[in-house]
Amino acid sequence: MNVFEEWESNVRSYCRTFSDVYSSAKDSVMVAENGKRYIDFFAGAGALNYGHNNAYIKRKIMDYLENDGVIHGLDMFTKAKQAFIETFQREVLAPGRYPYKMQFCGPTGTNAVEASIKLARKVTGRTGVFSFMGGFHGMSLGSLALTGNLYNRAGAGVPLSHVTFMPYPYGFMDTFDTIAYMEAVLTDENSGIEKPAAIIFETVQAEGGVIVAPVEWMRRLSALCERHGILLICDDIQAGCGRTGTFFSFERAGIVPDLVILSKSIGGYGLPMSLVLMKPELDIWHPGEHNGTFRGNQLAFIGGTAALEYRKQVNLEQEVAAKAAFLDSFLHKEIAPLDANIQIRGIGMIWGIDVSNLTDKAISKKIVAECYERGLIIERAGRGDTVIKIMPPLNIETELLMQGMAIIKTSMQKFCAQEVCSERQGVYA
Amino acid sequence: MNVFEEWESNVRSYCRTFSDVYSSAKDSVMVAENGKRYIDFFAGAGALNYGHNNAYIKRKIMDYLENDGVIHGLDMFTKAKQAFIETFQREVLAPGRYPYKMQFCGPTGTNAVEASIKLARKVTGRTGVFSFMGGFHGMSLGSLALTGNLYNRAGAGVPLSHVTFMPYPYGFMDTFDTIAYMEAVLTDENSGIEKPAAIIFETVQAEGGVIVAPVEWMRRLSALCERHGILLICDDIQAGCGRTGTFFSFERAGIVPDLVILSKSIGGYGLPMSLVLMKPELDIWHPGEHNGTFRGNQLAFIGGTAALEYRKQVNLEQEVAAKAAFLDSFLHKEIAPLDANIQIRGIGMIWGIDVSNLTDKAISKKIVAECYERGLIIERAGRGDTVIKIMPPLNIETELLMQGMAIIKTSMQKFCAQEVCSERQGVYA
Amino acid sequence: MNVFEEWESNVRSYCRTFSDVYSSAKDSVMVAENGKRYIDFFAGAGALNYGHNNAYIKRKIMDYLENDGVIHGLDMFTKAKQAFIETFQREVLAPGRYPYKMQFCGPTGTNAVEASIKLARKVTGRTGVFSFMGGFHGMSLGSLALTGNLYNRAGAGVPLSHVTFMPYPYGFMDTFDTIAYMEAVLTDENSGIEKPAAIIFETVQAEGGVIVAPVEWMRRLSALCERHGILLICDDIQAGCGRTGTFFSFERAGIVPDLVILSKSIGGYGLPMSLVLMKPELDIWHPGEHNGTFRGNQLAFIGGTAALEYRKQVNLEQEVAAKAAFLDSFLHKEIAPLDANIQIRGIGMIWGIDVSNLTDKAISKKIVAECYERGLIIERAGRGDTVIKIMPPLNIETELLMQGMAIIKTSMQKFCAQEVCSERQGVYA
Amino acid sequence: MNVFEEWESNVRSYCRTFSDVYSSAKDSVMVAENGKRYIDFFAGAGALNYGHNNAYIKRKIMDYLENDGVIHGLDMFTKAKQAFIETFQREVLAPGRYPYKMQFCGPTGTNAVEASIKLARKVTGRTGVFSFMGGFHGMSLGSLALTGNLYNRAGAGVPLSHVTFMPYPYGFMDTFDTIAYMEAVLTDENSGIEKPAAIIFETVQAEGGVIVAPVEWMRRLSALCERHGILLICDDIQAGCGRTGTFFSFERAGIVPDLVILSKSIGGYGLPMSLVLMKPELDIWHPGEHNGTFRGNQLAFIGGTAALEYRKQVNLEQEVAAKAAFLDSFLHKEIAPLDANIQIRGIGMIWGIDVSNLTDKAISKKIVAECYERGLIIERAGRGDTVIKIMPPLNIETELLMQGMAIIKTSMQKFCAQEVCSERQGVYA
Repeated sequence: MNVFEEWESNVRSYCRTFSDVYSSAKDSVMVAENGKRYIDFFAGAGALNYGHNNAYIKRKIMDYLENDGVIHGLDMFTKAKQAFIETFQREVLAPGRYPYKMQFCGPTGTNAVEASIKLARKVTGRTGVFSFMGGFHGMSLGSLALTGNLYNRAGAGVPLSHVTFMPYPYGFMDTFDTIAYMEAVLTDENSGIEKPAAIIFETVQAEGGVIVAPVEWMRRLSALCERHGILLICDDIQAGCGRTGTFFSFERAGIVPDLVILSKSIGGYGLPMSLVLMKPELDIWHPGEHNGTFRGNQLAFIGGTAALEYRKQVNLEQEVAAKAAFLDSFLHKEIAPLDANIQIRGIGMIWGIDVSNLTDKAISKKIVAECYERGLIIERAGRGDTVIKIMPPLNIETELLMQGMAIIKTSMQKFCAQEVCSERQGVYA
Repeated sequence: MNVFEEWESNVRSYCRTFSDVYSSAKDSVMVAENGKRYIDFFAGAGALNYGHNNAYIKRKIMDYLENDGVIHGLDMFTKAKQAFIETFQREVLAPGRYPYKMQFCGPTGTNAVEASIKLARKVTGRTGVFSFMGGFHGMSLGSLALTGNLYNRAGAGVPLSHVTFMPYPYGFMDTFDTIAYMEAVLTDENSGIEKPAAIIFETVQAEGGVIVAPVEWMRRLSALCERHGILLICDDIQAGCGRTGTFFSFERAGIVPDLVILSKSIGGYGLPMSLVLMKPELDIWHPGEHNGTFRGNQLAFIGGTAALEYRKQVNLEQEVAAKAAFLDSFLHKEIAPLDANIQIRGIGMIWGIDVSNLTDKAISKKIVAECYERGLIIERAGRGDTVIKIMPPLNIETELLMQGMAIIKTSMQKFCAQEVCSERQGVYA
Repeated sequence: MNVFEEWESNVRSYCRTFSDVYSSAKDSVMVAENGKRYIDFFAGAGALNYGHNNAYIKRKIMDYLENDGVIHGLDMFTKAKQAFIETFQREVLAPGRYPYKMQFCGPTGTNAVEASIKLARKVTGRTGVFSFMGGFHGMSLGSLALTGNLYNRAGAGVPLSHVTFMPYPYGFMDTFDTIAYMEAVLTDENSGIEKPAAIIFETVQAEGGVIVAPVEWMRRLSALCERHGILLICDDIQAGCGRTGTFFSFERAGIVPDLVILSKSIGGYGLPMSLVLMKPELDIWHPGEHNGTFRGNQLAFIGGTAALEYRKQVNLEQEVAAKAAFLDSFLHKEIAPLDANIQIRGIGMIWGIDVSNLTDKAISKKIVAECYERGLIIERAGRGDTVIKIMPPLNIETELLMQGMAIIKTSMQKFCAQEVCSERQGVYA
Repeated sequence: MNVFEEWESNVRSYCRTFSDVYSSAKDSVMVAENGKRYIDFFAGAGALNYGHNNAYIKRKIMDYLENDGVIHGLDMFTKAKQAFIETFQREVLAPGRYPYKMQFCGPTGTNAVEASIKLARKVTGRTGVFSFMGGFHGMSLGSLALTGNLYNRAGAGVPLSHVTFMPYPYGFMDTFDTIAYMEAVLTDENSGIEKPAAIIFETVQAEGGVIVAPVEWMRRLSALCERHGILLICDDIQAGCGRTGTFFSFERAGIVPDLVILSKSIGGYGLPMSLVLMKPELDIWHPGEHNGTFRGNQLAFIGGTAALEYRKQVNLEQEVAAKAAFLDSFLHKEIAPLDANIQIRGIGMIWGIDVSNLTDKAISKKIVAECYERGLIIERAGRGDTVIKIMPPLNIETELLMQGMAIIKTSMQKFCAQEVCSERQGVYA
């Protein structure tokens, strides 16, 4: 029995799909100890938008370590934090005229989600939160209550409270006006549903199966919140930091959420970090009211600052636009035709191949295993894990991107060929 | 207005006491950008047991970075994780014959606390948890429910449920048998208090004011849990990793908790990391049932592995014993006599000077400010922040340790001299 | 100041609309101490389906008292209880081939609602309950959680948990398929909504504004519950006991709910009583697991038994059918034409005149006051209290019924005449 | 199979001990259909303080019915309610200078408990309530949360929240100062226990095993509440209405709780009724904020008014004093000597014979069965149902009282004789 099976908890998960032991990684390639190389279309679940060991960021981190920069400083003032704040302000907030102040949380996404709902409750004096079916916001008790996945929720061991789930415009729920539904609930004195402190949403439900919220829906959601005095929280942990084409994923809708949550790629180098952005008038925190030993991870400040510099330097947004166009085209032209029941969804550099309507209910698992065999790390998401999620580093070399897509096509062909290619059947038509 | 005041949330806390901007740090000294040097008796709230930028650990981290080791790998298998597991098993678990399996959580203490109570609920099928008055376990919703501090609890914005607070042997609560109290509750079919899934405790309530649980009390607590089929969870986040003299702080009682939570210094270098240790029969997690993007922080694995090596190499336990004796002696002989109402509590290298019974209710704040002025970073804890908490890196140079203690004495003399030195009045005597 | 204002709590409510002091009542007429007589279209909120001091029932109650029958017997066996059980079984259950067992609860509707959801949770091992927007189920904490009215909910002082509100086919919610909505929620592993123990519903939302569930909707609801192993609870407190034309209000849909809750008119004479009917396989209660001092109100058993006899004797169902036809006709032909925006809803002998779309937002209050002035007691219900609810005793003399309706018409004419009679405007058209 | 077994839910309870079918009852005697007569030492669990079918009260009720008095009137003004309010004010409140206003709730004790904690939460803006171990307050969700009995609590099917159980001065909990314990909790900013809205208590824990709170304890409890701005709620449902010697059971302590809950005997004739008394400044209810169809049970108003008249007429308090003295003497002189381990507890006309320390763990059940066989209805209470509870009607004829006590003695002798009469062993002495 190996060391992992013997001593690591059964909770381990991704290693069951990607079963090699990895020793190093560079840019968009991971290398196993046996020497096998993998193209990485998973990118640390979105934490590696700038690739593994990005050379520019690495240099900054090495320098900082070399000079004995402060590695752990709780929420004391440090040069590293100062640089991050200034850079984030200059590169992200100022250009978009976003008025946000920053709260550095314990360096995980879930911690920032917890902080944001605490603050929303504190500001409004209300307890409830609306979250969306299909949404994923984390595993600590407060965040888990906001997460739609029943498998994960069952892990809580206690009923999860103070949250009302609302329909996200997808599947059957997209057959009626979900914003009007919320409006009806909020204006009905007999609805049984108290006005919430906040509505938390993702512009792209990544774990939920790469479901992209329409721009108009987001605008109406924002207007609804404003109309009712409800705080709008955008959980931009996975879709933010440039993944959808702009730094914030909600930019395409022209809205300004009251609170924004960032994590994953905000630290630049895959180092733990999280951030709550809040409109300044909401910043009614008392000192230390929400705290944590590792809040303000200094090395991540260095990585995050470097990443923002790098992003600008290489004109990453433009690069993403080009790759997004390639992905869009390839998926619709090369992948979709493999089976009439395949659905393609996505934006920027996050795409899903939805095979849930195919006859073989295990096909997504088979495809991903085949891809892995062929040297591609790619993950599944969505209901029944039936959506193959394409999420490479944003700066992936074009050749590798094409290579990866080719592997997907080849892998899918192997199993789709065995399908009786029925006519596309609209589920809710 | 400076960058922090303008853009960082008001939630920032320690920077209000330690108001310099820090640029670097080495071993037990932090250096501000203005060049001022501070002896660090705070040690990252216990995350820096091996000091800032410990040279041995730094070398390993630099090498790993240099070689493009995997920095972010979710819970995939990596060489870094493998090395940590093997080392922890060899250096810590095997010698103590601890049977634990390891779960790597989102790299914050609170996340591991959340995981441990989830698992306890899952294993037992019960919902309640007993926690102790004065206990501190974190800020996410599940952990906050276990935390005694009402100021922090109020931040939740929702009632905190599924937890019953039990008396910790301190103050009035130490005037009766708290274990017998729990026994009475658990055997009374009319107590209104359901048998809990778990009891979570700290062997030293650090944030609670450096309150050290008696060995006999811990043994009886452990026996109580066994008798009733309740899981015993030791939150060893602050007191663990050698702080009290042994690696686990509960070793002095000879007990083996069902679950142990580690964080803070477990990553060795101040890098975010957390760990749940569980008896193997409790490991009924389903894959990915509790998860998180940054679980298994690779660089912290490197730092943690190096720290365990370092610890052995320098025979740190022996070093701590000597310093503990010095602290014990100095505090009782030099500090206690300053005022008859001063109370000294502590063990190993965590000590508290309790000035809550002194006439001047603001004296702890003044002392700490004076220390800072004189070049010593030291924090307050406990009810009303009236306990001065001494918690230097375990490997602090003896000279610096003595220097720091001298600063405390000088600072206290300044304010205690102004006190009418009344006779010591035992509050519950 | 009078005795009520001085000594009775401000919580008093109906006396603010019907401000006389009442001394006696007979059949469908209440008499104030000043001698003024009122036709009663309120019928004790449905507790007086057989009228005030029904002569037949009265005789039985007087006899019982005269003979020192047991008045209070907790849940001991009594002749009174025996007679009720046998009569209810013979007159109600057997004819409809309903398999129910009976639980006599603390004699209020809310107590029976509490018992039913306890049992549903116990049987299924699940915690959640689906309730419907607009539903009203009582004021104790468990029932209040199921009640849609936000004004009443706010009285709880704590968040109300373990309930999910579902759309009832009314207003905007009727623009989409609410059964399909629930199906979608229940089959979506990512919905965030756990499968509930039960769905509780009213066939007519009386307090909600006299909203009548379509027969097909009820059938599909019942099928949904069966498909998912969810218990269906019919709260028949107000609509049951013959109000809609049949004894149980769900008879028209041909369904057999797993649990049925009766109260109000089940005691026959306006005496407190409540009942849970349960399919026998659900009767897993332990002795005394749910209890209460006044459960099984003996005098109400006598009244309830007599009422069932009376009901048969006078062929009440046939009588109701005739009056229902009259009400239907009168409301549509005489009342609806008063304003194009008036909506008429109802069934059997419960009807609502919905004036919410009229320009004058206070009109319902004015109409009801005018009716009272003219000698008619009639109550408002629904959102904003904009629905005038017609609910006379089932055995009201036809002349009084017509007289009462005439008063309504006259009263409405007074205020509707002042309205600009705009064209009917469909709200959701 | 009989009608009860076939059609009544398994939840039925007392009928399992007192298995006859009862047909009539008069004063302190119940008569079974087979003609067997039983002395009633149970008195409807305290609802029949004035005996079954009390002649004086009966006359008033018959008259009211005869004259077609209003039987059901929701919370409208009626002559019956007016008379009750005036009489209660004149006979109870005014003499004791109690300033209370009255709220008539759904006519069950649990409903009034629910109303009182709602109001306490509303007034204070806090959510928590302190209740006492051993306390019993009802079965609806809010009241059940306050009830200590774990068997009953388990029936909820959901975790019961917002309540903290405090030690009542009994058993181990009486070995330390429970008021000082609460004081310590309330003044400890780190206790994890938020200041509650209210503390609810019984002066005699009847269901808990007839545990009588010391006068000094009640005074200190009241002072504690005042000091901290916590509302004190006395649940006087079972111990009130004269049971302990005075009308309110707390009179002996000279305290004035902020809220008092009455039910059981308040309706005089065993008819359902409940009442919340509140200091006038607490009466911030909005109209109808707490409601219920049967609130203000008119026939119970008649019964309650008559009972207060009767009470005065026969000088019931004096009668109770004499009988209390007899019971005290008999129990200590005749019963206690039967076994050194018997404990006697009680006050006024509620007494408990605690046989929990006797060797035979089933002895209480045997004694009660033997009593029943011999024509005495008497119930058990307390932990493990090991306390024989003596609670006859207050106006029981002396001869019947003595007869009943003799039956108890005889019955106990049968089983105690089989005991090895060991020396009395104080459990906590």
